[in-house]
Amino acid sequence: MPISSIRLTRAIQALAEHSVDAILLTPGADLQYLTGFTHGHAYERLLALVLRRDGSGRWIIPTMNAEQVRPHAMPGQAIVAWTDQETYLPALADALRGASSVAFDDEARAGFLMDLLVTAPGATIKRASMITRPLRLRKDAAEIAGLRAAADTVDQTIPQAIALCQVGQTESQIDERLRGALVQRAPDQSVAFTIIASGPNAATPHHETARRAIEPGDVVIVDFGTREPGGYQSDITITCSAGEPRDPEARKVYATVYNAQQAAIAAIRPGVTCEAIDRAARSVIEDAGYGQYFIHRTGHGLGLQGHEAPYIVGGNTQLLEEGMVFSIEPGIYLPGRFGVRLEVIVAVGTNGAIMINQPSRPELPIAR
Amino acid sequence: MPISSIRLTRAIQALAEHSVDAILLTPGADLQYLTGFTHGHAYERLLALVLRRDGSGRWIIPTMNAEQVRPHAMPGQAIVAWTDQETYLPALADALRGASSVAFDDEARAGFLMDLLVTAPGATIKRASMITRPLRLRKDAAEIAGLRAAADTVDQTIPQAIALCQVGQTESQIDERLRGALVQRAPDQSVAFTIIASGPNAATPHHETARRAIEPGDVVIVDFGTREPGGYQSDITITCSAGEPRDPEARKVYATVYNAQQAAIAAIRPGVTCEAIDRAARSVIEDAGYGQYFIHRTGHGLGLQGHEAPYIVGGNTQLLEEGMVFSIEPGIYLPGRFGVRLEVIVAVGTNGAIMINQPSRPELPIAR
Repeated sequence: MPISSIRLTRAIQALAEHSVDAILLTPGADLQYLTGFTHGHAYERLLALVLRRDGSGRWIIPTMNAEQVRPHAMPGQAIVAWTDQETYLPALADALRGASSVAFDDEARAGFLMDLLVTAPGATIKRASMITRPLRLRKDAAEIAGLRAAADTVDQTIPQAIALCQVGQTESQIDERLRGALVQRAPDQSVAFTIIASGPNAATPHHETARRAIEPGDVVIVDFGTREPGGYQSDITITCSAGEPRDPEARKVYATVYNAQQAAIAAIRPGVTCEAIDRAARSVIEDAGYGQYFIHRTGHGLGLQGHEAPYIVGGNTQLLEEGMVFSIEPGIYLPGRFGVRLEVIVAVGTNGAIMINQPSRPELPIAR
Repeated sequence: MPISSIRLTRAIQALAEHSVDAILLTPGADLQYLTGFTHGHAYERLLALVLRRDGSGRWIIPTMNAEQVRPHAMPGQAIVAWTDQETYLPALADALRGASSVAFDDEARAGFLMDLLVTAPGATIKRASMITRPLRLRKDAAEIAGLRAAADTVDQTIPQAIALCQVGQTESQIDERLRGALVQRAPDQSVAFTIIASGPNAATPHHETARRAIEPGDVVIVDFGTREPGGYQSDITITCSAGEPRDPEARKVYATVYNAQQAAIAAIRPGVTCEAIDRAARSVIEDAGYGQYFIHRTGHGLGLQGHEAPYIVGGNTQLLEEGMVFSIEPGIYLPGRFGVRLEVIVAVGTNGAIMINQPSRPELPIAR
């Protein structure tokens, strides 16, 4: 039985368990997970798979995407194509006829949900992730292999990433060369994202790479990831210094973040809550007096998406299970000065964490 | 008065005209248009601006994005930051308190709309684009200048794009080199997208670039665009042949598409409907016997987004107005054989079309 057939069967079982009549998915990780369909987005045009609790399936697609969809439609699934001269609303209404409860793709455009509210006004709307998240949460061996392949690429590019952080280089220049290095190392992978944040910019966790040139002694955060052909991603963050760090606190902050990361990794095992892992990292940073500067969660799941469940965050009482994969990425951000973040990806194994990336370096690397 | 202040004022006037109490926008073109905020997406974290009909504004943002948001908040607009340990639902409920009608970002994640349906269950949901589309539809001189800057980059790269389509090169290789050429030509612009579709792949309009190698006589569609620093995009499609075209019909199909494009451009003037422009192109293709192979609309608007209003499509009775900018991109796709698409961007001027791109070439270019 093809993998997508097994996954579809599980999804349809989950519909019954949750008393949901239908699930509607648009292009994205859920649809890829269930059907293998990977052809990006249809933007403002509705491309969706509607699965019903009775096991039937119907693709609603723009005519122009027919060739891309056909290989992914399982036997018995109908394909309803609509042209640019038409609207997809009748097809949508038809696919959901009689459904009193619909699980709708959380990540679809909200405009499509507004369409649904009009075409099926009586239906109770639920989150598709309620159905798909439990299916995707534990990675199987093939998924782990994909994650490892992507992780190897970023791991092997770390020395180049550090070497690129030279005084006078702009963040954009470093970014472009890093992307080049990633593509050269793994021509079959694509670059998922890159963040280069230098000096005071490194105090902003999601800084967008800009034209600032590296100054002597800058601390530089480099956060980057790739996607392997199967769609599984990598995501790693290193922090280095362009020459000897200018800020006298840089090495202490680095060591604190490193220790926080190690504490979180050491706490990982099946049955522990996500929030306990966050707490393990946060306690180290709080004890060092930097608690108020650790302004984000400790980690996020990784798979077909760069951010997915489980989230390693205070308040998340979800229990870790074998096969879950997520980042451990504590950070300290001192406004106007610098920031340090160290990120690796780990899987939950029987007895503890299994490293998907190589471990972070224990001491601040210096680009010379 | 800064541009964003004028635009915000217009948006708030539009709320009153449509009897909408509040509009909620997440990162994207609408938010950029109104505030200049360009910092991409916050993914699963809610980052939103809520504007009320009384002129007040409130940003709901993840704490970690505070530095990025602050420069874009107008005087008097509140910033409510939430941390990863919290949920944004109370802030959302608070920002929309008493609003009985909410215009919600059509392009936000549907999950955020589900949040709204829970936190403001009585509110009537409308589309934010109802408010923002009329504002963005006619481009001003500065916007046209941005569109032209991006268009110049792709226009000047056409000879390289054709030269890259050599026998033996894979679509991915051509893609990588084309991206390199674009970045080199305009270091301050970013590549918005590229599509390389060769041989039978060119018969699929939204084909995703793959590892197929060009064969002698292949027709190749190259569709690409950039984004200038202000966010305005370019989008152009050329079709060429790797050596003399293998399919004896290729030149005839090319000439038909070219004539269709010219007919559509010639029909453009203020007061004509969008569907009349589509009809002008489609009639030429139908008259040549290829009507069933022109499987998409004739064009789409272009601005801060790659696809936006106005859509040049059958059934769209919207009247053209001066300053509207859109693509004219008829195509013919012969399944299993090849496809031809020619795309340029035009603006509506007082007396007719104003070319934003250089005109498409009248005869099939040959890569030798």
